Amino acid sequence: MISAWARSDDELKELSRRGLADFIFTNPAAAVENSDLVVLCTPVGSMEELANRMAPGLAPTTLITDAGSVKACVVDQLTPILGGNYVGAHPMAGSERSGLGAARGDLFAGAPCLITPTSRSNPSALARVKLFWEALGCMVTIMSPVEHDRVVARLSHLPHALAYALMNLVIDTLPEGSLHLAGGSFRDATRVAASSPELWTGILTSNGPEVASSLREMSKLLKSMATAIGDENPDSLLDFLKRAKHHRDSLPLPAPPETEEAA
Amino acid sequence: MISAWARSDDELKELSRRGLADFIFTNPAAAVENSDLVVLCTPVGSMEELANRMAPGLAPTTLITDAGSVKACVVDQLTPILGGNYVGAHPMAGSERSGLGAARGDLFAGAPCLITPTSRSNPSALARVKLFWEALGCMVTIMSPVEHDRVVARLSHLPHALAYALMNLVIDTLPEGSLHLAGGSFRDATRVAASSPELWTGILTSNGPEVASSLREMSKLLKSMATAIGDENPDSLLDFLKRAKHHRDSLPLPAPPETEEAA
Repeated sequence: MISAWARSDDELKELSRRGLADFIFTNPAAAVENSDLVVLCTPVGSMEELANRMAPGLAPTTLITDAGSVKACVVDQLTPILGGNYVGAHPMAGSERSGLGAARGDLFAGAPCLITPTSRSNPSALARVKLFWEALGCMVTIMSPVEHDRVVARLSHLPHALAYALMNLVIDTLPEGSLHLAGGSFRDATRVAASSPELWTGILTSNGPEVASSLREMSKLLKSMATAIGDENPDSLLDFLKRAKHHRDSLPLPAPPETEEAA
Repeated sequence: MISAWARSDDELKELSRRGLADFIFTNPAAAVENSDLVVLCTPVGSMEELANRMAPGLAPTTLITDAGSVKACVVDQLTPILGGNYVGAHPMAGSERSGLGAARGDLFAGAPCLITPTSRSNPSALARVKLFWEALGCMVTIMSPVEHDRVVARLSHLPHALAYALMNLVIDTLPEGSLHLAGGSFRDATRVAASSPELWTGILTSNGPEVASSLREMSKLLKSMATAIGDENPDSLLDFLKRAKHHRDSLPLPAPPETEEAA
């Protein structure tokens, strides 16, 4: 049996209408009562308040996980409220689309899922949260919340920031109407700039120090590429591109089409 | 009737074996004799030498175009050799793959094609070159070679440079094995880092000043994003992301699957 709580009443009604939830609730504490497992899937900035609101309804045996894209701040906020039965997770599935319209039965098939226990996590809770995400089809990797944020800043948050930045750079520097000349490289490089700005402002600021570091690293690297090009040093540029191609060609298993990081 | 010349004998034989050329030649001047139309599709760095080698075989009426991704230097090099019957073009089709194995009958369907005449171009040559690319399915836009290089630096060369840079940044900053955690945003952002390093070193250096400028613009923008995130100024970040999403959502007509910029 699935009980659902959502921020919007319209989403709740739609969940019910589609048969995706057995019960719908407007009170988080009521929604989690008698639950074996609770999964938090809101933007990361809303999780602390939601945890506080649902805490009174939780049983001592209820297992809790989440699907947030940032882990250190979320785990720091939720662990004191939810205790050792909470184990954070980040299923790297989804796309630039959000809401129920973007739901897919095979969303998690083959997707990486990072699980981020701490010394306070109950070992049995960790084992069961792992089984849950694996049952959805995820390939689970376990790491600390801090390590998660460092890795994901560069594998996911930075690509999103680059997509938004490239889009704005083109709008600011090229004549109006140039966009219809965009080919596949621009289209792919900016795909995730169509993602929810509210959701991504939350993610980028919640993982602020690591995202800012990765942006500065990238900024420096682009400046050094500009210098290599200006110096007419094609050999160093060629080596740089060869190295990137070598690693890109070795990228394991393509993800299922359209898959992307979640809330 | 199609006559083909290629840099490699193996490619020539394969063209012939597949019935893609009626005649194959190892001498460029012999290949172009009695031709109505000649299309140069080599890397931009090879075009000047090739034009010199084929020039003795050209008739005064032969029309010539090319498919190079950079235009100012190519047009400057080729016009004195080939005269007013040469009109440069850049069909923005193709993918990170190269060679005959990547050939597709519908490669140009719906793809933008930029045609870059100069004051020396014969008006009738321009009209016929336009008809040729349109007959292949391209959507033609006419602009000067300099304007082309400025626009394409940001719509195509910069996204390629970003893909190569992001790939190397991840390799240099994350623990080995992190790549298997990459989701769709990283995969899409780095797709074109699988493109030929030799081809792209030629393109990035041939359009050096514009590419270097666009890399510096992007470097500056990323630094200002890092500052906005560090300043915990979510409103300015939210506005930045909203603006990008607004324009990304308005991007006209998706390109056909896998299409990308050519040689």
